[in-house]
Amino acid sequence: MSEQQQQENAAAAAVSNGDQQQQQNGADNNKEKEVTENGTTGESAEPVAEAENEAPKKEMRAVVLTGFGGLKSVKILKKPEPALNEGEILIRVKACGLNFQDLMVRQGAIDSPPKCPFILGFECAGDVEQIGEGVEDFQVGDQVVALPEYRAWAELVAVPAKYVYKLPKGLSYLDAVTITMNYTVAYILLFEISSLSQGKSILVHSVGGGVGQAVVQLAKTVKDVTIFGICSKGKHEALKEANAPVDHLLEKGSDYVSEIRKISPEGVDIVLDCLCGEECNKGYNLLKPMGKYLLYGTSNVVTGETKGFFSAARCWWQVDKVSPLKLFDENKSLAGFNLRHFMYLQNGAGHVKRTVDKVFQLFQEGKIKPLLDSTWALEDVAEAMQKMHDRKNVGKIILDPSMEPKPKPATPAKGKDKKKQSSEEKKDNDEKKEEKKEEKKEKEEEKKEEKKEKEEKKPEAPAAAATNGAGEPAAEEADAKEKESSS
Amino acid sequence: MSEQQQQENAAAAAVSNGDQQQQQNGADNNKEKEVTENGTTGESAEPVAEAENEAPKKEMRAVVLTGFGGLKSVKILKKPEPALNEGEILIRVKACGLNFQDLMVRQGAIDSPPKCPFILGFECAGDVEQIGEGVEDFQVGDQVVALPEYRAWAELVAVPAKYVYKLPKGLSYLDAVTITMNYTVAYILLFEISSLSQGKSILVHSVGGGVGQAVVQLAKTVKDVTIFGICSKGKHEALKEANAPVDHLLEKGSDYVSEIRKISPEGVDIVLDCLCGEECNKGYNLLKPMGKYLLYGTSNVVTGETKGFFSAARCWWQVDKVSPLKLFDENKSLAGFNLRHFMYLQNGAGHVKRTVDKVFQLFQEGKIKPLLDSTWALEDVAEAMQKMHDRKNVGKIILDPSMEPKPKPATPAKGKDKKKQSSEEKKDNDEKKEEKKEEKKEKEEEKKEEKKEKEEKKPEAPAAAATNGAGEPAAEEADAKEKESSS
Repeated sequence: MSEQQQQENAAAAAVSNGDQQQQQNGADNNKEKEVTENGTTGESAEPVAEAENEAPKKEMRAVVLTGFGGLKSVKILKKPEPALNEGEILIRVKACGLNFQDLMVRQGAIDSPPKCPFILGFECAGDVEQIGEGVEDFQVGDQVVALPEYRAWAELVAVPAKYVYKLPKGLSYLDAVTITMNYTVAYILLFEISSLSQGKSILVHSVGGGVGQAVVQLAKTVKDVTIFGICSKGKHEALKEANAPVDHLLEKGSDYVSEIRKISPEGVDIVLDCLCGEECNKGYNLLKPMGKYLLYGTSNVVTGETKGFFSAARCWWQVDKVSPLKLFDENKSLAGFNLRHFMYLQNGAGHVKRTVDKVFQLFQEGKIKPLLDSTWALEDVAEAMQKMHDRKNVGKIILDPSMEPKPKPATPAKGKDKKKQSSEEKKDNDEKKEEKKEEKKEKEEEKKEEKKEKEEKKPEAPAAAATNGAGEPAAEEADAKEKESSS
Repeated sequence: MSEQQQQENAAAAAVSNGDQQQQQNGADNNKEKEVTENGTTGESAEPVAEAENEAPKKEMRAVVLTGFGGLKSVKILKKPEPALNEGEILIRVKACGLNFQDLMVRQGAIDSPPKCPFILGFECAGDVEQIGEGVEDFQVGDQVVALPEYRAWAELVAVPAKYVYKLPKGLSYLDAVTITMNYTVAYILLFEISSLSQGKSILVHSVGGGVGQAVVQLAKTVKDVTIFGICSKGKHEALKEANAPVDHLLEKGSDYVSEIRKISPEGVDIVLDCLCGEECNKGYNLLKPMGKYLLYGTSNVVTGETKGFFSAARCWWQVDKVSPLKLFDENKSLAGFNLRHFMYLQNGAGHVKRTVDKVFQLFQEGKIKPLLDSTWALEDVAEAMQKMHDRKNVGKIILDPSMEPKPKPATPAKGKDKKKQSSEEKKDNDEKKEEKKEEKKEKEEEKKEEKKEKEEKKPEAPAAAATNGAGEPAAEEADAKEKESSS
């Protein structure tokens, strides 16, 4: 398939996904009612639950996506405990990592997403509860972290052993989900694809995010590396407080190309881009001779709460295709890295396992200091996702299945919690402006979606909490866990 | 400038260069007569020679390109000795390296070539004869190797100090020009761009050439590396004799993609392509996930003795442009390396100097074994170029200004020399067939050129020898130097 075709298909897929989404959202609303009415689930038609008629399985709580779209599609549901297949390990989950990829999955903004409903999540840590046939090197009781293809955000998950890594001494569950995916990606970007070496300069987009922070820490293990980091103005103070050694902090949405050229007229040696769209071309043009541009995400696809046709299409159409002859003339490299494709489609699990080992080694040498943003109950996943969507987090956002949900509107939270809430509600002005611009462009196509979005802006957690059957009385100390250092 | 434009311009340039070439060849023939008649040169209108009226400068022999085109345009002429400018080093040349790039320059098949006439050559070794103002770290008498931008093939050359490297102990002039450019390129390809590591597989085109052999030797310093090497069938025996540790020797022009897939169904980790054209797409498609394709030459442009419009255009048009999004989906990298651009246009001399140091270090550790194909007198440069054009060399072809030219037709060479001559004249059948195919396609455009080519197939060295004023009596032992190990 030619790339031209590929892009056209992708654009077409974006449209059809949009339609599908509408339909699914519709279907979903019905299902949701079903769920809240009968107290359990209308989701039991899922293959996993097929055996249910024979012998009623034990149930567990899980974060389920009931249809692609906004936060409303994310539900806490009771699901049958997973069956353990050959080569798999059953993990009792103690902590789940939230990654930007989860937002894209929720919106249906990734290629070949699974059929809804399904359990979300690509990262969790916990204890080995049971071992499938043919699994070696693991024992019941082992503390592990895993990168399964979906299904990580539940009390229990069965994961093929190739995606499971034993925790080294001293690495807690929280730290494990803080570093495993982010630092493994950062390690591969810096040391396996870009071959970072002494004296080089790097431009990192979304430097306040999980991978961004991992890149900064790992890059600074190499002598004389200069880091240009871009993120929204609102995060600059927090990053300085977190002692992130970014040499030049630049503002998202500013003319960062000119800013960088003022400091380094020749440009930079490495560009790490998780945004895509027009940033691709800007990044490529900023490269010095022998420079390397690396695309490892397409988060510019995510603008509103639900997938916008135009933001997705822009991400495809704005990106210039490059001839190898141009690279030959200019002495430049272009690369892409997609961990999900590599691990689950391209047989890369062994490679990733070796890299995880290196990351754990660096942790044990004290070269990695996990940066935790906040911990949330499964029931508060929507709020946690909104925080990441608003790019308000500095460091990792974690879900903890044992944590009690935040008190919901009837009992307003107090103290630190209250302050946090209000700062989240008060959107960063610049970001708001930017989003409005986007929305204007997409107005025609997304009018209906926007309407929905507005409705969703009102706290919706109570509804979710009501469905999960675990709506224990508000525990005011729950939030104390947030921001707590886990090591 | 968009790439589309760039390619169109390049194609247009290919056409206009073709015209230019015809004109220059015409002008050239006249000049040549002038030269042979007055015994010196009609070239003294060159800027270097401006001072001639004031005080007649000393002269030196040099390999001069009098116009872009076939072998006839390469002349041995008397030229004024070069003036030494600030920051330059004057080198008395003992050995010159012939690189494929020199063939492309002769044909005018490179971007922004200098104005004819000019002295050819990018690589030479010799003794420091004089030092310009402001030059540090060098002394008269130092043995050095240099990579100047043209002008290396002469008895004397003035080179900016940044392109000059002192020879380490034990490295002879011949070995120096055998390894410096080729191993520096190979080192950058393998260790700075592709980051070769244990267990990887590499596909190398033109594996019998100078860079090809350097790649093989350097790659084998890493554990468990598998090398797929492609070259014309005629070289396979010689490569086995030379003990080149190529794991899988494949035939040029064969369906090497299927051959490789049979051995390694997943493909290869690294593709090093100096050919361009359709090999780009084949190479890209052969990459495993996390694989890297690297274009470092466009020698497919060179088909006939003079530049063909169609071969040049094909090299541009056959190459698929790639979107960074495709690289993201497939986990692949694309890169280009052009030493000439890097050193002379992109301020890369410092970087290259550091890499040359690493190459010399490897030589001293015994990890590099220079592979010399043959040594030639300046007067025999046309024959040497023809050998490289026919891909008959295994290892480096060197010009030695102190060497006496081969006996010309009146006194047919004997022994080893005779055998060599005949094997060169007898073209490899497969190659001949391939060339005929090419020629058919280019027939319409190149009828005139082909005619010329046929004329040139007859030995033309005597004419060249007659022009250089150094046509000493045939020294039969001259060829003994050929194939002689220089260390």
